[in-house]
Amino acid sequence: MRAVIPFKKDNAKSRLSGVLSKNQREEFAMKMLHDVVNALLESDVFTDIDILHSSISSIINNNYPSNVNLLVSDKNLNNALNEYLEKASSHTNDEILIIMADMPLVTKKQIHQMIGLKGDVIIAPGSRGGTNALLIRRPDEFRVDYYGISFLDHVRISKEAGLDVDIFDSFMVSTDMDEPNDLIELLIHGRGSAVEYIKNLGISLDTCTGTLYFENKN
Amino acid sequence: MRAVIPFKKDNAKSRLSGVLSKNQREEFAMKMLHDVVNALLESDVFTDIDILHSSISSIINNNYPSNVNLLVSDKNLNNALNEYLEKASSHTNDEILIIMADMPLVTKKQIHQMIGLKGDVIIAPGSRGGTNALLIRRPDEFRVDYYGISFLDHVRISKEAGLDVDIFDSFMVSTDMDEPNDLIELLIHGRGSAVEYIKNLGISLDTCTGTLYFENKN
Repeated sequence: MRAVIPFKKDNAKSRLSGVLSKNQREEFAMKMLHDVVNALLESDVFTDIDILHSSISSIINNNYPSNVNLLVSDKNLNNALNEYLEKASSHTNDEILIIMADMPLVTKKQIHQMIGLKGDVIIAPGSRGGTNALLIRRPDEFRVDYYGISFLDHVRISKEAGLDVDIFDSFMVSTDMDEPNDLIELLIHGRGSAVEYIKNLGISLDTCTGTLYFENKN
Repeated sequence: MRAVIPFKKDNAKSRLSGVLSKNQREEFAMKMLHDVVNALLESDVFTDIDILHSSISSIINNNYPSNVNLLVSDKNLNNALNEYLEKASSHTNDEILIIMADMPLVTKKQIHQMIGLKGDVIIAPGSRGGTNALLIRRPDEFRVDYYGISFLDHVRISKEAGLDVDIFDSFMVSTDMDEPNDLIELLIHGRGSAVEYIKNLGISLDTCTGTLYFENKN
C-alpha cells in the first residue's frame, strides 16, 4: 500500500494570516506535514510515502526513512493526483491512500481503523464537504475531484465506476487547520510537533472560557 | 443501559436566529431531538430513554414507545444531569449515556461503536472542546461539568475518580448544529427528519461552490 500527501509550502494556510506570519504559517504547515508522515510511518503499513509538492524544496526531514519520497508536480491538485493514480496503477495497482497534510490530529490509530474498512473506496470526510483522506483500493478505476463539495463528488465517482464506498467517520481526521478557531482543536487534542510549535509561539487556550490568546508576534 | 438527552425547546438554537425564525428554530430543535431518539431506539440497547426538559411541554412524539420518558427539571444543565446520575445510581447503577439533542447525524451505527469501547467513561468530543456524548459505566463515581472546555473537564474528572477514559472519535457525533454553516454538514450527511425539515424550508446547498442559500422567510 502507498500513501500520497499533497503539500503546499509557499504561502501555506493563508486563512491563518491574521494570526500567523507567512514564515510561521509555512513552518506550521511543515510541522503538520511531519505529524501526518509520522502517523503513516508508525502505522507500518506503507511501502512508500510520497509527498507531492509543487516545487523542489527542502521539505523532507533528514530523519525520515528512505521510503518517504518527494515528488514534484506543477499541475493543480486534481491533475497532479490523477496523474499519480494513473502512473501508480500502470505499475502495481497497489492500494493508495491520499491524505491531506493539514490534519495534525491523525495518528496510526485512525490509519489502522480506516484501512480496516472493506469498501473499494473509503472516504474520510472533512468539514464543509471536504475529503480529508481517501483510500482507493483499485486506482485504475478511480479519479479524484477535490474542488467543490469533494465528499459528494467522490461518492458519485465511486458509484459511477461501480465501486463500493465506505465512510470513515473520524473527528480527528475531519479536523483540518484552516482558520484560527481550528487551533482550539489542536490545543485540546494535539499530541505531535504541530501543537508544540503553536504552544511555543505563545498561542494558548483559556480552558474555562474557550478563548484563544495570541501572544506571538506576527 | 439508560440514555438521557438534555433538551431545550424555548428559544432553542439562538445562534441560528439570523437564518431561522424563533418558531423554525424550535421546530428544528424538535426534529433533531426526534432523530437522536430514533437513533437510540434503533440501536435497541436502552431500557429507558429519558428526555430531560426544563418544563412540561408536548415534546414527546405520540409515536414513541413507552420507554421514552419526559423528565422535568428547572436546574441548570450540570445540576440537572448530576441529580439524574445520583438518582439513577442509587437505584440500579446501570450504565448511562448522556447525549446531546442537536446531533442529527448520529445513527445507531455510532451508538453501537461507542458502547463497544471498553473504558469506564467514553467521551465523544464535539467541536471547540465540547462533549457531545458521554457514556458513564459507573454513574455513582462520576459527575459531569458541561461548562468551559467540557472535554478536558470530563477527562480530568474521570482521572481524579480513577476511571479509565476512552475517546469515541466520530465526525458524525462531533457535528452539532450551532451556527448557520453547520447546516452545510446536515445537508451533505443528514438522512433524518431534521435535514428534511431544513430542505422543506427552502434552505439548499450549491454543491459546486459550497454556498448555502436561504429561500425561507424568517
